[in-house]
Amino acid sequence: MTGTKTTTGTKTTRKQVSEAKKEPPLPDWIDGIDPRLEVMSASPLVLSTPVGLLAENRITDKRYLFVRNIQDLDEGMTMEPVPLEGWEVELTGLIQPYRVVIRAEDLPEMEQVEYEMILQCSGNGRNEYGGIKGTPWNQGGVGNVRFAGVPLKAILAKHNVTVDPQVKYITAEGHDGPMGQEKPDFEHSIPVADVLERGILALRLNGEPLPGIHGGPVRLVIPGMFGTMQVKWLARLRFETAESPNFYHATEYRVPLTLLQPGEKFRFTLQNSRPTWDIRLMSYILKPEPGAKLKAGPVTISGVAYNDGKAPIESVLVSVDRGKSWQPAELDVPDSPYAWYLWKTDTTLEHGSHEIWARATDALGRSQPLDGKIFWNPNGYEWTGVFKNEVTVQ
Amino acid sequence: MTGTKTTTGTKTTRKQVSEAKKEPPLPDWIDGIDPRLEVMSASPLVLSTPVGLLAENRITDKRYLFVRNIQDLDEGMTMEPVPLEGWEVELTGLIQPYRVVIRAEDLPEMEQVEYEMILQCSGNGRNEYGGIKGTPWNQGGVGNVRFAGVPLKAILAKHNVTVDPQVKYITAEGHDGPMGQEKPDFEHSIPVADVLERGILALRLNGEPLPGIHGGPVRLVIPGMFGTMQVKWLARLRFETAESPNFYHATEYRVPLTLLQPGEKFRFTLQNSRPTWDIRLMSYILKPEPGAKLKAGPVTISGVAYNDGKAPIESVLVSVDRGKSWQPAELDVPDSPYAWYLWKTDTTLEHGSHEIWARATDALGRSQPLDGKIFWNPNGYEWTGVFKNEVTVQ
Repeated sequence: MTGTKTTTGTKTTRKQVSEAKKEPPLPDWIDGIDPRLEVMSASPLVLSTPVGLLAENRITDKRYLFVRNIQDLDEGMTMEPVPLEGWEVELTGLIQPYRVVIRAEDLPEMEQVEYEMILQCSGNGRNEYGGIKGTPWNQGGVGNVRFAGVPLKAILAKHNVTVDPQVKYITAEGHDGPMGQEKPDFEHSIPVADVLERGILALRLNGEPLPGIHGGPVRLVIPGMFGTMQVKWLARLRFETAESPNFYHATEYRVPLTLLQPGEKFRFTLQNSRPTWDIRLMSYILKPEPGAKLKAGPVTISGVAYNDGKAPIESVLVSVDRGKSWQPAELDVPDSPYAWYLWKTDTTLEHGSHEIWARATDALGRSQPLDGKIFWNPNGYEWTGVFKNEVTVQ
Repeated sequence: MTGTKTTTGTKTTRKQVSEAKKEPPLPDWIDGIDPRLEVMSASPLVLSTPVGLLAENRITDKRYLFVRNIQDLDEGMTMEPVPLEGWEVELTGLIQPYRVVIRAEDLPEMEQVEYEMILQCSGNGRNEYGGIKGTPWNQGGVGNVRFAGVPLKAILAKHNVTVDPQVKYITAEGHDGPMGQEKPDFEHSIPVADVLERGILALRLNGEPLPGIHGGPVRLVIPGMFGTMQVKWLARLRFETAESPNFYHATEYRVPLTLLQPGEKFRFTLQNSRPTWDIRLMSYILKPEPGAKLKAGPVTISGVAYNDGKAPIESVLVSVDRGKSWQPAELDVPDSPYAWYLWKTDTTLEHGSHEIWARATDALGRSQPLDGKIFWNPNGYEWTGVFKNEVTVQ
């Protein structure tokens, strides 16, 4: 990455982060983070949200929103806003003029657009596949937040930028640097149509200035896509005819186009795989949690469901008898197609051990496999299987 | 088309077919066809199977199997076999040697492979979209049959044919000719991997020589694909790097890659659309039929379900209260992944009018939209919506 950064800020050096990893399990070196978050990695910073916290509010508070950095930015390791002054985003590639520099401090003066939307790591749920290397996510790599900022389309119009019709992808570079000598820098290519249709340069999270830890001062946000595509600390957008051959885009954060057997070897190419762009259909049971001990009698089962926003969620069916019968949950439909649906249903559980299953279906007829391992892939991305919460009724 | 036909047979001229269209509604000029088939067109010949007949047997008898010709072959307008002697299939394109001629009469000596499989017109169910031009199919353009023949892969091996690694599609030409001056000839391009994996040069239908009307003497058959790809009266296979620009392949028998509003204009290109290759997930209620009048009390609901064979059908849920509750049907799982599942379930219906809904889901989590119009497309292909049979209980 060749950045255009000119800003400086309070530095938390990598050395400090590294020390933090060894000593305190909770990141008390970052003020404002809920201490109940699980530290999955301190460098790069990876924090998981306990599922119980997700059930507290429709909007996930920034204090307990998960964090998944691929590469840390020193001045981004804070819950405080990072100053807009001096931050620049460069546009380049197959555009006219060839190079345009956007000053972040000019963005708040433009019209802002806000999306209530899912932010989810494409590795969320990875543990369900079993035995896959990588951050061992259960269900804590997701949240439902409000991002606000300026549509890229409006920025292009303001600066009289013309996009060549040959452009197929916009490659986004963050201002972070590679972790370690052998690692390449981080970037992602995203279909130009998606970015121009709804991509924003986000400045705010849940109505407040975007914290450094969540990508401030400027983050590329495309609702409906996985978190890895929402590039933090945005430094540059390249308008290109092909997907980037970058390591993180061309070999990581991809899934095969064909089904594999668990454990099967696979050599990723741009042709035999696709990036983890669009969020897969999902339903979570937030209550009761896995392992819960309940009293016999009536119980309310509740959770969330969401997809890529391309069509409404049409139903969530719940089964407490391992799929022999299903009952539809009551849906609380959000205004935004990219936000999660809350759902709940009442049932009665007898003594014994039970599995609670929840399965969403959307208006396109997309549903969740009962055995999500059918989509096994070497890096364990895009879990979309039915979750099965085991509970004991006493 | 430049054919390689050398055979001659009993001719039914187009003039005769054309006369048949004006006069008798049933094709009594073709011996052996069940007179209960509905004649949707006499030239080209299009015959629809009454749904009640589909319920009679797991295997659809050739006498009542639907027929959908795009272009008639004169000597193919018969339920009798067409002689193998003199029939040739040419292989050409990016192969070594450049041109190979397969004699049909040599094929029975090779090892035969049989598939029990769905044969379905990609326009089947078109009427559900409402107001779309084209053959007005309800549910009668489908059957479950057994095709047997020689794998193309074995033919290539026998003739020492090498396929260039650049080949992406095999374009299949039938031996029929264009209907009318302005119409182009009929052909389809199919991904080479699918054809080489499971494509056969079919010689037999349900254990008997392939009738002319169903594509005999030699039909290209790729289980899991729509009927239009199962090219009748096979004359030539071209090994190519790109899809054919042919009218029937490049503008007809395609669906847009994006969702459209019903009635929306769309100009098909190879880039903005895809061919109707893989059969879409489907469940049919065969009994009770739409409009049936039943007595109050217990009723057995039964039907079929199928997909493209890429994953098993996992469940068929049935609702008699417009989706408020669903009950799983009992599945009769076929040996072949390409055949249909029979399903049935018992329920009780009170006096009044009811809708019976059936919805299949497969192991990939693919299900059917409750409102299939969400996939509206200008030519009304690939209906995959939930069927809703209205019945009256007296």
